[in-house]
Amino acid sequence: MSKLSGIFTPHMVPLHADSSINEDELRRYIDWLIERGVHGLYPNGSTGEFTRFTAEERKRIIKIVCEQANGRVPVLAGAAEANVTETIRACETYAEYGARAVAIVSPFYYKLSSESVYAYFREIALNSPIDVTLYNIPMFASPIDVPTICRLSEFERVIGIKDSSGDMAFMLRMMSAIKPHRPDFVFLTGWDAVLVPMLLMGCDGGTNALSGVAPELTRSLYDLTRAGKVKEAMVLQMRLLELFDTMLYSADFPEGFRAAVQLRGIDLGNSRQPLSQPQQVDLASLSRVLQCTLADFGYVDQPVGGCRLKGGEMNRDQVAHIAQGVIDQLRDKGLL
Amino acid sequence: MSKLSGIFTPHMVPLHADSSINEDELRRYIDWLIERGVHGLYPNGSTGEFTRFTAEERKRIIKIVCEQANGRVPVLAGAAEANVTETIRACETYAEYGARAVAIVSPFYYKLSSESVYAYFREIALNSPIDVTLYNIPMFASPIDVPTICRLSEFERVIGIKDSSGDMAFMLRMMSAIKPHRPDFVFLTGWDAVLVPMLLMGCDGGTNALSGVAPELTRSLYDLTRAGKVKEAMVLQMRLLELFDTMLYSADFPEGFRAAVQLRGIDLGNSRQPLSQPQQVDLASLSRVLQCTLADFGYVDQPVGGCRLKGGEMNRDQVAHIAQGVIDQLRDKGLL
Amino acid sequence: MSKLSGIFTPHMVPLHADSSINEDELRRYIDWLIERGVHGLYPNGSTGEFTRFTAEERKRIIKIVCEQANGRVPVLAGAAEANVTETIRACETYAEYGARAVAIVSPFYYKLSSESVYAYFREIALNSPIDVTLYNIPMFASPIDVPTICRLSEFERVIGIKDSSGDMAFMLRMMSAIKPHRPDFVFLTGWDAVLVPMLLMGCDGGTNALSGVAPELTRSLYDLTRAGKVKEAMVLQMRLLELFDTMLYSADFPEGFRAAVQLRGIDLGNSRQPLSQPQQVDLASLSRVLQCTLADFGYVDQPVGGCRLKGGEMNRDQVAHIAQGVIDQLRDKGLL
Amino acid sequence: MSKLSGIFTPHMVPLHADSSINEDELRRYIDWLIERGVHGLYPNGSTGEFTRFTAEERKRIIKIVCEQANGRVPVLAGAAEANVTETIRACETYAEYGARAVAIVSPFYYKLSSESVYAYFREIALNSPIDVTLYNIPMFASPIDVPTICRLSEFERVIGIKDSSGDMAFMLRMMSAIKPHRPDFVFLTGWDAVLVPMLLMGCDGGTNALSGVAPELTRSLYDLTRAGKVKEAMVLQMRLLELFDTMLYSADFPEGFRAAVQLRGIDLGNSRQPLSQPQQVDLASLSRVLQCTLADFGYVDQPVGGCRLKGGEMNRDQVAHIAQGVIDQLRDKGLL
Repeated sequence: MSKLSGIFTPHMVPLHADSSINEDELRRYIDWLIERGVHGLYPNGSTGEFTRFTAEERKRIIKIVCEQANGRVPVLAGAAEANVTETIRACETYAEYGARAVAIVSPFYYKLSSESVYAYFREIALNSPIDVTLYNIPMFASPIDVPTICRLSEFERVIGIKDSSGDMAFMLRMMSAIKPHRPDFVFLTGWDAVLVPMLLMGCDGGTNALSGVAPELTRSLYDLTRAGKVKEAMVLQMRLLELFDTMLYSADFPEGFRAAVQLRGIDLGNSRQPLSQPQQVDLASLSRVLQCTLADFGYVDQPVGGCRLKGGEMNRDQVAHIAQGVIDQLRDKGLL
Repeated sequence: MSKLSGIFTPHMVPLHADSSINEDELRRYIDWLIERGVHGLYPNGSTGEFTRFTAEERKRIIKIVCEQANGRVPVLAGAAEANVTETIRACETYAEYGARAVAIVSPFYYKLSSESVYAYFREIALNSPIDVTLYNIPMFASPIDVPTICRLSEFERVIGIKDSSGDMAFMLRMMSAIKPHRPDFVFLTGWDAVLVPMLLMGCDGGTNALSGVAPELTRSLYDLTRAGKVKEAMVLQMRLLELFDTMLYSADFPEGFRAAVQLRGIDLGNSRQPLSQPQQVDLASLSRVLQCTLADFGYVDQPVGGCRLKGGEMNRDQVAHIAQGVIDQLRDKGLL
Repeated sequence: MSKLSGIFTPHMVPLHADSSINEDELRRYIDWLIERGVHGLYPNGSTGEFTRFTAEERKRIIKIVCEQANGRVPVLAGAAEANVTETIRACETYAEYGARAVAIVSPFYYKLSSESVYAYFREIALNSPIDVTLYNIPMFASPIDVPTICRLSEFERVIGIKDSSGDMAFMLRMMSAIKPHRPDFVFLTGWDAVLVPMLLMGCDGGTNALSGVAPELTRSLYDLTRAGKVKEAMVLQMRLLELFDTMLYSADFPEGFRAAVQLRGIDLGNSRQPLSQPQQVDLASLSRVLQCTLADFGYVDQPVGGCRLKGGEMNRDQVAHIAQGVIDQLRDKGLL
Repeated sequence: MSKLSGIFTPHMVPLHADSSINEDELRRYIDWLIERGVHGLYPNGSTGEFTRFTAEERKRIIKIVCEQANGRVPVLAGAAEANVTETIRACETYAEYGARAVAIVSPFYYKLSSESVYAYFREIALNSPIDVTLYNIPMFASPIDVPTICRLSEFERVIGIKDSSGDMAFMLRMMSAIKPHRPDFVFLTGWDAVLVPMLLMGCDGGTNALSGVAPELTRSLYDLTRAGKVKEAMVLQMRLLELFDTMLYSADFPEGFRAAVQLRGIDLGNSRQPLSQPQQVDLASLSRVLQCTLADFGYVDQPVGGCRLKGGEMNRDQVAHIAQGVIDQLRDKGLL
């Protein structure tokens, strides 16, 4: 089998109004992504909210995606379940569904030691009928450190790592420790903000949430970097960074991404995580900002009323300050 | 219904050799705990490894525990599921099973903002047919801050909080913010290390992992504190602290607690989280230490060979140092 | 010499308009504190902004304070300098000035290992002509862990620890490890938020920033606790907590405390840390809130215009929200 | 004046046996560095242990370095002092000494808000007679965030930033925010582990501790990257990474760097931070490892007895494990 490389989309899952999986729209979204050039699909990732689905739903998602991809692009299936036995069972099922490999996040909730992380993946490496990529995302799950990855790279079944720490030094340390004895080992970055430098330093590709929103952009950036057009790639990286940061930091993850995908015409429906009234207002406001940025790229039209000039934005603190001033004055005059 | 108070045991679940639930032993364990004086049971807590069971298993555990408790003591059922809809369904099921209340941990994996935490619990408060206690454990899940708890205390269904941060100032802040308008609100601490001071400062009780190991001890400590015998309670607190720290910090949570419960004659079986060879050796060594401490309390016999004198222990670093010295010398002499 | 106990005030240093030390006002402040019942003085602590003074100024501060205290209350002198040699020199100087003991913060800026922290304090313990209290404040300096404190308690010169972590379990662990072989060891807490429970659990006293603002309050709380009037002490603790939190979290430390001391009639002057225009506005607003709280205690008059009713406050986020709504409407109508 | 670029060495300061500054050796070290191709000198940085010198010593160090450099390479002088007034005074002095610019770390000990960090640097920007580079090192000092750097870039006096976070995304964010309006702004990285990718992404150079140990290596790496020989540069980066990690993580910073510089024949003397007996043993052992790595590069001879083969090392945990086994067996047989 060929080595995994390129951009794998950790896509979200469209939901009906009653919160059940919208299979038709999911299939349409898969087609939409493939048509726009993503190299692979990565269902049941963190962006795909795998923890918010039941075990049955997770299986159904992989089944639908494998069917719909239908060999056009490889599927990297998120396979983490409640415990090592259930995870191995999922590996077996996803092998049958035709996934190219699985991606397995380190155990979460409890913060495990390196030794426990090793023992967990070792068990999987020994029993999985399908290639395994380790998934390191220390902000959400027990970290997988360099010595542990190194020990795990001794299992043939473990073919690579997808790292979402965004830590360049960590990536270089892994490469330095593993490439000498495993030149085939795959390094994927899940941190869109540093995609170009990661590719330049030797990553084989990425699993990038942004490719679910703007697959054309991530693909261009990938192609330009591979073609050695670093300057042009960097210009895109900088613009991508702004879009990525807006989606990431303006709302609880992954609501910003949901809003952006929605703008591209995919009907994702509402989050399973309830939103308060102020959050809904904030999200509407964020959506307007995202529409302007996506319009800058030419992916969508500007919102009705147009986009404000750059630099004219005020942040929440500035607004609070102005408002506080007004309120204080009203209060001093006894009007409040 | 009477206010929750006293010690609720967040007990572990015995497993068969094939890792399935050992129902007979679970029932025996429940009896054992009730006979030793715990005020209530708290299945599917963090000590109970709720994340390592499937959704079906979690339901089965609550069913068994409610049946076995059979009204002798109240059951506080851990009810967190993959999403708010599933969690509410679990609340409904556990109400039918006869649980006194549910305890719901804040969403985990993703780190949610206060507003999202509020929206999640609000939805539950509006729909649960059974009393809800919030479960704050910031080291594992999204934190529930004081203003959020305060807003949630406006729902009648939310009857209390179980806090495992161990932060005394945080506990005082909650009490200060909530007691004036909700004198019935229940405050439970999940941090055994500070149980006596928490009770003295106004907590109604605790959900304490140690009560699954030494229910007699936790119960004595509780009774002494309630009786105003602070000095005696403090002596126990100090001894408890040592036992608690050993179980907590000598192995990945909750393996130390499993080893200790095992020593009390409850056959918990092996962890679903695989252990490496060195971890198994370490755990055997820890078990010997725990047996000595439990023997000090008179709960078990000393291990064969007796217990080493206090103060004679060496820590891993000291051992490493000595060993390194030996190895270096051997190496310098060309013997290694 | 008698054991250190009671409330030691980590007082601030009044400055002239040109930022030089206002000696007259410092002497007046010392008198003011002693008259209101503090048990000791603690110059050059964190509240006292020791890092913002030059080495010469730090010496001058201790000289003034020792002179002015003149034996009425003991002086615990903050003695941390750039390196171990300079620190020992400061110990010598402060012994000559008549300080009762020194308090030495763990090395900061670099995060040192336990072994380095030990080596640093060991050197001081062997060379200081004056009693030494260790100062643990992990949010600002290298932490001093329990085994390290235990090793250091073997030096007679080390007479106690002042802990500002506020971690009750940590305090109990220290007591458990040290009291058996050093019953004379002094435990002071620097975390006002948990002063009552810390005293109940065996602390000898505290070094509490709040005692520089409201010495009467801290003193009452101390006396009530010592007299076994726990209920009354707790009521004060809860009120103190609110005041403490407001000073601590509404501005960069220790600006909130400076504003509050100022309200008591001590002319502290401006901070050596420059404040931006918005910060000055915020501080003026905070000062009004603090005046209301201090007026509730009867320490000062209400501000002109009176105090708003409790519960009617809006937080910054709420204000921002309202303001954003107004601004959005204006913008939608093209008025902005 | 020309734009700062290239490698600036944050060099250490040689000390006599009595811990006073060894001026002759410092001058020899400066010559040694310049002869080996560093582009500039950066005294009083974190590697240079500025906090462990007195204010007078810090001034003397800059004076010596400026004199000795004597215009051959520019001097970037660390100028952070106890407060803003003292810092500005240091700027004035260093301007007189002939420094090219100063580097000022954000206030430390207290963790300041962005607004305070801004106010501090604003005051300096308005009053310094010499160009200022901001120094961001969030692991030791209050962080300088992107909006704050952006606001500060409006002052002409602020000519650049030296960032030691090693966070590539942060660097890209800064560049994206500042380059459009300040194309002359200088970006330096202090994180040797990612020097090549940082240079590729647009950094002007670095302030790299490793250049004090192996200036030839850092210089080669810089020249190769600038010449577009990315592959060769990457090979060096990977080897550099190993050396850097060994120095950084095997002892408290910057002891590993001191040991390595010592191996190059510069007599740095002992640290002002006392070392315990075990630390001295560990450092001797580290020195042997470093000598082997430096010998691999051809900078020094192998240690007497030669270097062990790669891959044969055991880590401390493995050693502890073996040793524990031996000890346990001896104990079981009653021999211990």
